Amino acid sequence: MTFRAPVRDLAFTLQAVAGIDQVAATGAFPDYDADLLGAVLEAAAQFSEGVLAPLNRVGDQKGSTCVNGNVTPAPGFSDAYRQFAAGGWTGLSAQAHSGGQQLPKALELAAYETVHAANMAFGLCPMLSLATIEALETHGTDAQKETYLTKLVSGEWTGAMVLTEPQAGSDLGALTATAVPVGDGTYKLTGQKIFITWGDHDATDNIVHMVLARLPDAPAGPKGISLFLTSKYLVGADGTLGERNAFHPVSVEHKLGIHGSPTCVMAYEGAIAELVGRPNEGLSHMFVMMNAARLAVGVEGVGIAERAYQHALAYAQERKQGRSVWTGQSNAPIVDHPDVRRLLSVMKAKVAAARAICLSTGVAADLAQHAPDEAARKRWKGREDLFTPIAKAWSTDVGVEVASMGVQVHGGMGFIEETGAAQYYRDARIAPIYEGTNGIQAMDLVGRKLSQDGGQSARDLIADMKETLAKLPKLYSGKPVERFANAVEAVEDATMWLLDAKADAKRGADVLTAADAYLKLLGDVTGGWMLAKAALWARAELDAGQGDPAWLEGKITLYEVYAANVLGHVSSRLATIGQGGALLERMSVDVLVG
Amino acid sequence: MTFRAPVRDLAFTLQAVAGIDQVAATGAFPDYDADLLGAVLEAAAQFSEGVLAPLNRVGDQKGSTCVNGNVTPAPGFSDAYRQFAAGGWTGLSAQAHSGGQQLPKALELAAYETVHAANMAFGLCPMLSLATIEALETHGTDAQKETYLTKLVSGEWTGAMVLTEPQAGSDLGALTATAVPVGDGTYKLTGQKIFITWGDHDATDNIVHMVLARLPDAPAGPKGISLFLTSKYLVGADGTLGERNAFHPVSVEHKLGIHGSPTCVMAYEGAIAELVGRPNEGLSHMFVMMNAARLAVGVEGVGIAERAYQHALAYAQERKQGRSVWTGQSNAPIVDHPDVRRLLSVMKAKVAAARAICLSTGVAADLAQHAPDEAARKRWKGREDLFTPIAKAWSTDVGVEVASMGVQVHGGMGFIEETGAAQYYRDARIAPIYEGTNGIQAMDLVGRKLSQDGGQSARDLIADMKETLAKLPKLYSGKPVERFANAVEAVEDATMWLLDAKADAKRGADVLTAADAYLKLLGDVTGGWMLAKAALWARAELDAGQGDPAWLEGKITLYEVYAANVLGHVSSRLATIGQGGALLERMSVDVLVG
Repeated sequence: MTFRAPVRDLAFTLQAVAGIDQVAATGAFPDYDADLLGAVLEAAAQFSEGVLAPLNRVGDQKGSTCVNGNVTPAPGFSDAYRQFAAGGWTGLSAQAHSGGQQLPKALELAAYETVHAANMAFGLCPMLSLATIEALETHGTDAQKETYLTKLVSGEWTGAMVLTEPQAGSDLGALTATAVPVGDGTYKLTGQKIFITWGDHDATDNIVHMVLARLPDAPAGPKGISLFLTSKYLVGADGTLGERNAFHPVSVEHKLGIHGSPTCVMAYEGAIAELVGRPNEGLSHMFVMMNAARLAVGVEGVGIAERAYQHALAYAQERKQGRSVWTGQSNAPIVDHPDVRRLLSVMKAKVAAARAICLSTGVAADLAQHAPDEAARKRWKGREDLFTPIAKAWSTDVGVEVASMGVQVHGGMGFIEETGAAQYYRDARIAPIYEGTNGIQAMDLVGRKLSQDGGQSARDLIADMKETLAKLPKLYSGKPVERFANAVEAVEDATMWLLDAKADAKRGADVLTAADAYLKLLGDVTGGWMLAKAALWARAELDAGQGDPAWLEGKITLYEVYAANVLGHVSSRLATIGQGGALLERMSVDVLVG
Repeated sequence: MTFRAPVRDLAFTLQAVAGIDQVAATGAFPDYDADLLGAVLEAAAQFSEGVLAPLNRVGDQKGSTCVNGNVTPAPGFSDAYRQFAAGGWTGLSAQAHSGGQQLPKALELAAYETVHAANMAFGLCPMLSLATIEALETHGTDAQKETYLTKLVSGEWTGAMVLTEPQAGSDLGALTATAVPVGDGTYKLTGQKIFITWGDHDATDNIVHMVLARLPDAPAGPKGISLFLTSKYLVGADGTLGERNAFHPVSVEHKLGIHGSPTCVMAYEGAIAELVGRPNEGLSHMFVMMNAARLAVGVEGVGIAERAYQHALAYAQERKQGRSVWTGQSNAPIVDHPDVRRLLSVMKAKVAAARAICLSTGVAADLAQHAPDEAARKRWKGREDLFTPIAKAWSTDVGVEVASMGVQVHGGMGFIEETGAAQYYRDARIAPIYEGTNGIQAMDLVGRKLSQDGGQSARDLIADMKETLAKLPKLYSGKPVERFANAVEAVEDATMWLLDAKADAKRGADVLTAADAYLKLLGDVTGGWMLAKAALWARAELDAGQGDPAWLEGKITLYEVYAANVLGHVSSRLATIGQGGALLERMSVDVLVG
């Protein structure tokens, strides 16, 4: 089936829910206006639908290969990447002085959602370039920017994040790769790294690796890690490419999904590298990249969910079985059976909620940098920090869930690989794992983001939700209002409970036990809040006689679907949040082995 | 990692929760006693661990092939099947006069759980023989029993269920295969069938197909379908095999998982067949097989979940990352991190609940047939009917969920196929689809099972739950009791709501919209009820100074984990149950396409 990028919904969400007009109002994006927003999304849609989506299946079937220290991507991928770069898609949000288009991050994320939906394995390549760009913009020297940044922004080279080692995954403090100063300001980098996404390929002349490693005299643990830049080919002072550097891919992994994305084991054998930022502060420097990448992974979750939804909806319109209780038609399309309609309705509602969360996080990131006054920037930074783990974890869980529902809508055909639904189920499964597992996101949320400002960002969020809640009775009566009211109250209760627990040093296990359920609660309710905002906006448009009435009415119905099928989860989240670490401690390893 | 069949837990669940002693007390199983139960489970464990588990990965990697109208299973599978048959595993519950061991169904299901856990693709082959045996026992003529049944019971031949056609999946009434009388009492069967599990292979001399087809003068729709038996090789009056019959596999499907199970497209081209049962009543005859198969598929869900759980637990004990908040150990095994412990604890609780539901359904099926008085048989039949869709749907959803959690526990390694966790995630995904999708199960539950006896079976269940609830304060105080009380109340409310809605012919869409959430609610609460029964039994054992104290204490903790992490879901199920069909009707296709 043909992928159609959800351009109208992306534009609506950016405007009505995420509030991109506030970003425009900062004046930091001189070229940006609503027309440009539409043009960028249309062009992204055209590329994603026309070039990337048709390669999705061949990428899955052929995957990439690693022979003699060189990776060959799946057929068509390298050529598609070069078209992508030529179209300027790697420089949307980069600074103008590096050749970028200096557009809002939020718009870039929306454009990339179409890329990930069309071809998630492909999208990883530019996604990691964007993270590299962000790290160099923040921590690179002028010379590094001059040499590497412009090439990354133009897409002539790609970037890779090089963190994980076999013994150092979630715990990067355990990594052992080393970088020894040569004496001329450069370093020799040695070690083996795993799970290096697009660590090698033949789509570009050069590849820039951002690598975490230890200096010879570095302290043990996370405070002895530095960030280095090394490139596949050495770059001369005049920017020309020299000889191949001393690192290469050892193999590509045989994975459950995203076969089109080469996941490399990389060996660095005295590779010439440069320090980026300050010695022993690599982990905090890398966090700049990781936070951007985490939000981008959330958008992957939205993209794959959108794709799976479209695929399932198309099948449900074509596939005919049995009599519809609504239409009375025999041999009716299965979309006219309530249980299938329910599945599709919940899928659509969750996709819309996840999209709104991710794009709102993007707007928060834009405003954290560009809001006119310091207080506003601080407030938006707090929102961005609070939302990033939710955007990553909640949206990628939605990706897996919706992809699985998509398989289910297909019935037996869903299990047959040729149908295509199974690929989304396989591809989607990586997103809750990489860039920090969703468990790590939850710990980041409760351990750092929730309390870094004494809980102020969470309180601001609750206040914003209550503002929406106050308007809701204009639009709905009864349960759709009650459910949101209960949900906001649950967020408030859970937040207070957690802040209390965090204040007691002995309750560390209680906090960590609650983390996942708290993140899910916040995601569920934030998603509902955003769909409520969308519904209110739609109502205002309808009242003003603007827009497509049926489409806008759909937004009003969508919140009701979400309220009935998702917001009801809040009480189960509360039970889980409050269970306490002591209970799990009693579930000892002996009991687990049982 | 090595699979260990959960023999102790299977025996405990059969006794403490499912109540297999009541089955023994009927006197219908002369050879059965508690010692035999232990011996059967130990022997099943030995075979599953020693022969089947080691073939699981090769089955996934090599799959089966179809060349020139013959299917070759994955390496080792045919030989393993012959060992399996020689061990008597295809005749555990069959009648003694057919060569069976006449043991309780519930025990057979427990033994087969170890088979499915060890190698789900393999287990499908004998599972379908068992369903064929049950159909022939019920509807076969003496001659058919003589010719076919004994060979199926001995495992010398295997059986296959042949229902689906491309246009006839959930709606079997749409099938078009035909059977034309030849005049000598046999029929010529013509048509194409899809999704025929183990429809062809080389493990046995012959294969018996139970095929749904239409007689020439049959009415249209579901009331014109008859059940036929046809075999790969014709069988002479003396039981010797004759020439190959006119049907063959056209291809095997390329599937997401269970690669070791050949899923055949079958062509019947005038195959000689016999009628089974009465003309035009094939669908109801086939339901005998389907109900047995549905429960068996539920057990597959339990098996794959158990396997995924064990795999994840072993990894979590080996893999070391970061400092444990409990032990203070740095580089601690990840099982000592609360979020991983939570995942594993919830996995274990859900596996135990699903196991208890399936084995209790098996006991109900045994008692429905063999309880001493008519009233008791009727009551147990009602329980079996009510539980079958729950056992199938809830347990297979648990299979997918636990397999996905297992991938998550592995972090990045979970996405690498060599690790093995990904195979369970792929294999598990079929179980919510085949033998009637879980949506079909939910419709069966609310459309037929709930009201066939005016709701009496549901009321009986609620009464049984309340009996357990009354005992719970002996063991727990506070939330573990409250949560179950709320949960039982929710079941009661939802059941009354549904019975009311069903009484109103105009509310058909409301009922169908509620179906999935009602099944999930009933599954969640029934699972909790069973873990509560297990905890009470464990407490009694402890009080009597019997058994392994630590293991029994674990059962008491497990209910608490389930109560905190699952029973809290009830309120969200209620919101979904009550949403009404009108809301989904407003989510029209236009809105969905958006």
